[in-house]
Amino acid sequence: MEAEGKEVVPNEETVEISLNELSRKLEEFAKARDWGKYHSPRNLLLAMVGEVGELSEIFQWRGEVDRGLPNWAESDKEHLGEELSDVLLYLIRLADICGIDLGHAATKKIIKNEVKYPPN
Amino acid sequence: MEAEGKEVVPNEETVEISLNELSRKLEEFAKARDWGKYHSPRNLLLAMVGEVGELSEIFQWRGEVDRGLPNWAESDKEHLGEELSDVLLYLIRLADICGIDLGHAATKKIIKNEVKYPPN
Amino acid sequence: MEAEGKEVVPNEETVEISLNELSRKLEEFAKARDWGKYHSPRNLLLAMVGEVGELSEIFQWRGEVDRGLPNWAESDKEHLGEELSDVLLYLIRLADICGIDLGHAATKKIIKNEVKYPPN
Amino acid sequence: MEAEGKEVVPNEETVEISLNELSRKLEEFAKARDWGKYHSPRNLLLAMVGEVGELSEIFQWRGEVDRGLPNWAESDKEHLGEELSDVLLYLIRLADICGIDLGHAATKKIIKNEVKYPPN
Repeated sequence: MEAEGKEVVPNEETVEISLNELSRKLEEFAKARDWGKYHSPRNLLLAMVGEVGELSEIFQWRGEVDRGLPNWAESDKEHLGEELSDVLLYLIRLADICGIDLGHAATKKIIKNEVKYPPN
Repeated sequence: MEAEGKEVVPNEETVEISLNELSRKLEEFAKARDWGKYHSPRNLLLAMVGEVGELSEIFQWRGEVDRGLPNWAESDKEHLGEELSDVLLYLIRLADICGIDLGHAATKKIIKNEVKYPPN
Repeated sequence: MEAEGKEVVPNEETVEISLNELSRKLEEFAKARDWGKYHSPRNLLLAMVGEVGELSEIFQWRGEVDRGLPNWAESDKEHLGEELSDVLLYLIRLADICGIDLGHAATKKIIKNEVKYPPN
Repeated sequence: MEAEGKEVVPNEETVEISLNELSRKLEEFAKARDWGKYHSPRNLLLAMVGEVGELSEIFQWRGEVDRGLPNWAESDKEHLGEELSDVLLYLIRLADICGIDLGHAATKKIIKNEVKYPPN
């Protein structure tokens, strides 16, 4: 892994990754480390709140931030991508442990919102 | 809508929905309602924190909760799926508005975690 | 209640209320309702996260907000005061249930910060 | 500072500290460092969310936690006191910058709750 490294960078295809595929990767990850025992719903929820805190810290002293983050350093954008991912991964894991199909639920929620808020 | 209903329920295929596809749906949703103007990074972040709060409220007085939510009413699971979705949808939208490819970032983060925490 | 009302409005003296006094009021409140059994540390923490979410919702679509909230309706300020209070009250209760003297801890933290960040 | 130390530890009297007194200390602290310019309402709110995240991290992998934290190391309790304080201090500062008297608002909120939830 470390020796060559080129497998480390996700290719174009992985960019279209599904929620279910991320869920499967997280399950394998936890299994290989015997971490499943820590993954109770409320543990995962609090871990996610912790990551939401780290995400907020990136934005806390900046005042209003423009779309596309025009003046941000590349390293700050990288950091932001990691914190957004941490929230996402705990969220997916939480849904999974609760037995909720998040892709299905999110698709339904968008449809519900489309009915609730008709377009102009 | 209620009369026919069957188009409302996402089919098997949508369950394998990708983050990019959800991102595109949210962009269309915002465009059709002219809501893009409200979607600044910090507005979306605070909206997401609001949804994390609603998610926490579901778990707040329950004490420890078992995996799979064995004793939860179907309506509570439905509600949970909606709140998980609300967090997800604002998270995806936030990433999008910041110009971050969340599927790519999350895949990279899992690989980084695999290196950081070697399996047993 | 509305008929008499004037006892409801806190007088000048209560404005200088101490954290310990609020803590005592919350203890009495819980005791009188037999709610102590729900007040475990993680229940209270999640309840506080729920209130932080409600507080965030007040600010979520406003873009940058000026100090003193110059253009806010009186009812919005009132609502803000309530949500700030809800966060405070769960925070005080959480500290209390954990056996932490919050006034003492906060005073120590300010002193620590003064050492860590020397004035200009 | 380390040499003498005894002034660092708050005495009995400071334990009965009022919210207004903490608010005044925070105002002095910000003034002495010229940090007032960073203290906009949404900056402070996001900073508080960041601290709520750090507080949650203390509780995230512990499963249910007993009142009084019977089996916690003294250093963990110390850490908890600091994170609770960080949330409190940003909350007080946020209220202050918004022009809300938090002690007054919290006292009113308790009275409102007493009316809303009559004792058994």
